[in-house]
Amino acid sequence: MAKVRVAAFSVSVDGYGAGREQSLAAPLGRGGEQLHAWAWPTRTFQTMFGNGGGTTGIDEDFAAASFAGVGAWILGRNMFGPVRGPWPDDEWKGWWGDEPPYHTPVFVLTHHARAPLAMAGGTTFHFVTEGIEAALERARAAAGGADVRIGGGVATVRQYLRAGLIDEMHLAFAPVLLGGGEALLADIDLPALGFSVVRKAATENALHVVAAKAARSPS
Amino acid sequence: MAKVRVAAFSVSVDGYGAGREQSLAAPLGRGGEQLHAWAWPTRTFQTMFGNGGGTTGIDEDFAAASFAGVGAWILGRNMFGPVRGPWPDDEWKGWWGDEPPYHTPVFVLTHHARAPLAMAGGTTFHFVTEGIEAALERARAAAGGADVRIGGGVATVRQYLRAGLIDEMHLAFAPVLLGGGEALLADIDLPALGFSVVRKAATENALHVVAAKAARSPS
Repeated sequence: MAKVRVAAFSVSVDGYGAGREQSLAAPLGRGGEQLHAWAWPTRTFQTMFGNGGGTTGIDEDFAAASFAGVGAWILGRNMFGPVRGPWPDDEWKGWWGDEPPYHTPVFVLTHHARAPLAMAGGTTFHFVTEGIEAALERARAAAGGADVRIGGGVATVRQYLRAGLIDEMHLAFAPVLLGGGEALLADIDLPALGFSVVRKAATENALHVVAAKAARSPS
Repeated sequence: MAKVRVAAFSVSVDGYGAGREQSLAAPLGRGGEQLHAWAWPTRTFQTMFGNGGGTTGIDEDFAAASFAGVGAWILGRNMFGPVRGPWPDDEWKGWWGDEPPYHTPVFVLTHHARAPLAMAGGTTFHFVTEGIEAALERARAAAGGADVRIGGGVATVRQYLRAGLIDEMHLAFAPVLLGGGEALLADIDLPALGFSVVRKAATENALHVVAAKAARSPS
């Protein structure tokens, strides 16, 4: 059964998925890059960055699983880029260069229409102005029976959670204090939304927690 | 240099130091006992419970360190017991039976005066009605150069944090979702209060994070 899932989503132990003062230079906000100390050294991310090697073990297992079986992504506009308001032109093509790490259709939530943008390596960005349900419907269709991954950022994950549309969340709690920023779970009651912890594993740089809803009946 | 510290304080990954609906039967609130799964099996806690054995390793090291060098404790009234309002009599003597695990003077914050209560094993409960600074002053004097431990609960820790009176916090983040209850760090910015992470260690049941302020100059 295909899932709608959040994966490899890093959160500080004080609850923030991104730091304060997000900007072009610091897309994860002040201190936000520390959240991902568990991920960057892994073989999955080192391969993505075009390097050799990389670590294996628990962190790598979670990094690899986060990409496995994903047929489409959904991103909030802020995760796609720093441009606000109407698109001035087609110059901004995401944070990731010519070959983004998605290799699938990616549905970007925005209030401003824009033509699809095909990138190298199989990623095509589609800009969806009809809201989160419409984006999910298109992503499910595009995924062809594989999972849909909600990539973020925090506001996007919170919207999908509150709408009851996420089946599984893999969160990586990092031993980092950001003090402020975007709180992922503030006023969101995961058990009340049907989630329980189905897997946990700890490493030096993250406490990995997978929370999932009971399986839905086939639709 | 003696410290004022919080130690072995368990928090769910969604941020709660106690669950909802605290009661006589469930002093840690609904689900709250799960927070301490890392602590109960340790040699320190098993010894406290009068059992033999108990685990050694990282969790035990943190459990043992939480009691070492503590000369006095401070507790909020709710951590001392479920009685609210004026003390009807002297019947309630804490959650811990005849010989509480403190073995030091313990200063209980309350709005209602009560005579000190001497228990077996060296614990004496003192009831302080003059506020958190007065309690700390008395605890420091009683500790005789050893550390003062702020035992909790959440509201008490938050008061001392906001007043800038805590030097070190050892928090044990448990891979547990409570969904609601008493949020320990909501709207508290530890880095802005001067804290940084000085130690981290992970086990199956907790991500241990020690945050400390830069050492104070001798007073």
